[in-house]
Amino acid sequence: MTSPADRTPARPGRRHLLRAGTLGAGALGVGAAGVGLGRSLGAPSAPADSAEEASTHWAPYGGPTVPFHGVHQAGIETPAPASATLLALDLREDVDRDGVLRMLRLLTDDAARLTRGEPALADTEPELSSEPASLTITAGFGPGLMSRAERPAPDWLAPLPAFGIDELEEQWSGGDLLLQVAADDPLTVSHAARMLLKDARAFTTPRWGQTGFRRSPGVVRPGSTLRNLFGQLDGTANPAPGSEHFAKVVWIEDGPFAGGTSMVVRRIRMDLDGWDEADRGARDAATGTRQDDGAPLSGGDESTPPDFEKVSANGFPVIGEFSHMRRARGVDDGEHQEIYRRPYNYEHAPAPGSGLLSEAGQVFVSFQADPLTQFLPIQRRLDELDLLNQWTTPIGSAVFAIPPGCAEGEFLGQSVLE
Amino acid sequence: MTSPADRTPARPGRRHLLRAGTLGAGALGVGAAGVGLGRSLGAPSAPADSAEEASTHWAPYGGPTVPFHGVHQAGIETPAPASATLLALDLREDVDRDGVLRMLRLLTDDAARLTRGEPALADTEPELSSEPASLTITAGFGPGLMSRAERPAPDWLAPLPAFGIDELEEQWSGGDLLLQVAADDPLTVSHAARMLLKDARAFTTPRWGQTGFRRSPGVVRPGSTLRNLFGQLDGTANPAPGSEHFAKVVWIEDGPFAGGTSMVVRRIRMDLDGWDEADRGARDAATGTRQDDGAPLSGGDESTPPDFEKVSANGFPVIGEFSHMRRARGVDDGEHQEIYRRPYNYEHAPAPGSGLLSEAGQVFVSFQADPLTQFLPIQRRLDELDLLNQWTTPIGSAVFAIPPGCAEGEFLGQSVLE
Repeated sequence: MTSPADRTPARPGRRHLLRAGTLGAGALGVGAAGVGLGRSLGAPSAPADSAEEASTHWAPYGGPTVPFHGVHQAGIETPAPASATLLALDLREDVDRDGVLRMLRLLTDDAARLTRGEPALADTEPELSSEPASLTITAGFGPGLMSRAERPAPDWLAPLPAFGIDELEEQWSGGDLLLQVAADDPLTVSHAARMLLKDARAFTTPRWGQTGFRRSPGVVRPGSTLRNLFGQLDGTANPAPGSEHFAKVVWIEDGPFAGGTSMVVRRIRMDLDGWDEADRGARDAATGTRQDDGAPLSGGDESTPPDFEKVSANGFPVIGEFSHMRRARGVDDGEHQEIYRRPYNYEHAPAPGSGLLSEAGQVFVSFQADPLTQFLPIQRRLDELDLLNQWTTPIGSAVFAIPPGCAEGEFLGQSVLE
Repeated sequence: MTSPADRTPARPGRRHLLRAGTLGAGALGVGAAGVGLGRSLGAPSAPADSAEEASTHWAPYGGPTVPFHGVHQAGIETPAPASATLLALDLREDVDRDGVLRMLRLLTDDAARLTRGEPALADTEPELSSEPASLTITAGFGPGLMSRAERPAPDWLAPLPAFGIDELEEQWSGGDLLLQVAADDPLTVSHAARMLLKDARAFTTPRWGQTGFRRSPGVVRPGSTLRNLFGQLDGTANPAPGSEHFAKVVWIEDGPFAGGTSMVVRRIRMDLDGWDEADRGARDAATGTRQDDGAPLSGGDESTPPDFEKVSANGFPVIGEFSHMRRARGVDDGEHQEIYRRPYNYEHAPAPGSGLLSEAGQVFVSFQADPLTQFLPIQRRLDELDLLNQWTTPIGSAVFAIPPGCAEGEFLGQSVLE
């Protein structure tokens, strides 16, 4: 929810939050305690590291709550839960600056309620609101929203440049407003997303929606790296949530978006049928890692730093020059950028007549303080050369500015748009 | 997995199973113990009601296993897990009886492995097989498969008659072979479904696939009735798994399919936008129950039998004559049939330009010994008159014959097709 090393943006609402106590540690503690709850569901009361860290909603069932209000928005540094829906909406033509602010007030109010496990204000199915299951709701702004709200957009807030590997489809790209709705339960996500869509209905039309999945609570050790549909551990080199390093990589330091971040969404189709035909050697060579344990081909385990200098007996680099990991890390260009990846798998049942066994891939989501200096160089290198490109195709792309979190009584984006 | 009152079909493989011990109680116990695990994940060893009830795969993570072999197939009487994919496949034209049997041997072998948490035989991502999470794989036969295998189909194995409310789409209907893949984790389901599709690829083409969700483990009390996307408790009057009554309703007693059942799959589109406009009174009148606690309008709680005779002060029945519950129960026709419902919710993000907030509904699944005498009369009554029809539209329909379970060394359907 927030980083331990809070760099205090000079805004009253935010100062108020920081005065309220050790929100940083507390909010992070809830994330950790949420994991703890997963281990002890069914106990009359779940243990928390301290009473202060307990959420307002804490029961044998229903799952924990993640605080909505805070210095940063939830859904970024908080653990990625099992189920997520990303919704991109376009503002209706007649919506002006006042309309945008009114809509954000409505959305913020209901998002706060839903994440507490309470019904939305005009909830027609309040029964579906009582299991928050670590629900988080994160809002992001596209360039269209900033312009409609008559406020300057960050210079990086624009579609990414075209890449050679892209086969972008309009139906998965762009958008004025992004809502990331995520929880450890798919019915919770479905209901919350619908309540927010209803709030936004008078102001927006749906542009695209993407739904993805990670592991259900309790199925893998909390904090485990996600496996994607290729079977690869995906996200190994992520900065650790809660660390100062994470804060440096992810949070914007200055300007109106201080305490916010940028979000890149890429819909990446994965050719599972083609991947089937690659043997383990070809797969590992393409990634530069071992599929089974995620260790770099230079040895060790998933957490061992790769040795890019290591050569085989016949003089070739053990981690190939065109391998995904080597290209992503930029070792051969003397560069090194970092982003925080928080992806979801997607898979649709085979479309009739498609001949495919399924349509599958990854809803790639990354957060970084500046997409131009962090995400873009990595993507450029991968676009140039990356063996994995044989089996992956970006079919959607969008960039959003994520405003900082808000305090109670404020609305999401208030500090940015006021 | 099986009923406590085992009616022994006179087949060697099945007798062998029954000789092997109290499989009935044991298998059911695993279901219950699985729920227990959900409550105590993270403990070094999870408590089971007795040692005999522990499954072969039992770890802090990965989730429990549900035995694949047994008198009945798993995935019917066992608790419905969080995530399911239903796949309907059509046999390729050149597949003869031998091909059908060969395919079923392959599928059975891999289904048994995957449900144990082991990789499929030609598993290219064995890493995705190690979390069974209560995985069950259930196979059903359409009329096409029975005919190709040169064996007579049960007389009820045919498409349901057309109903006035139907708007069936070919892409969601029929099929020669049905695979129901369900687990408490969506990645487990995705991988298992793919492995089975690969096994079947040489013999079949995909006809349709449907994916649905229930609650994640630990989010609601085990055994709770599922809420559908209308917010209603759905499945209240189900016979209790493990009861003699369940066995009577679900399992076929005689003939080649003894120990098996029939499966009706209906894809029911739910008009959530229209439902939004109905107030609580109109909703409850349509169902005959209270949305909040599922109690009949005649009073009590979810488990209270409805009093269809009760009238209001002005003489009208409290549970309206056209209400869903009254029509489903057949009280006014002097009929009463029962089925076992095991549905999943579905929702797709809004399609661009559709104007809808989402495409949503229910993958209705029911099991009953005879669809003609059990499912059909209920559906006929609902087709004639049911206030709920205003908001629901069947868009897919299929009937499958579910063969009994098999013993180790046998293949699914062996007793039926040999």
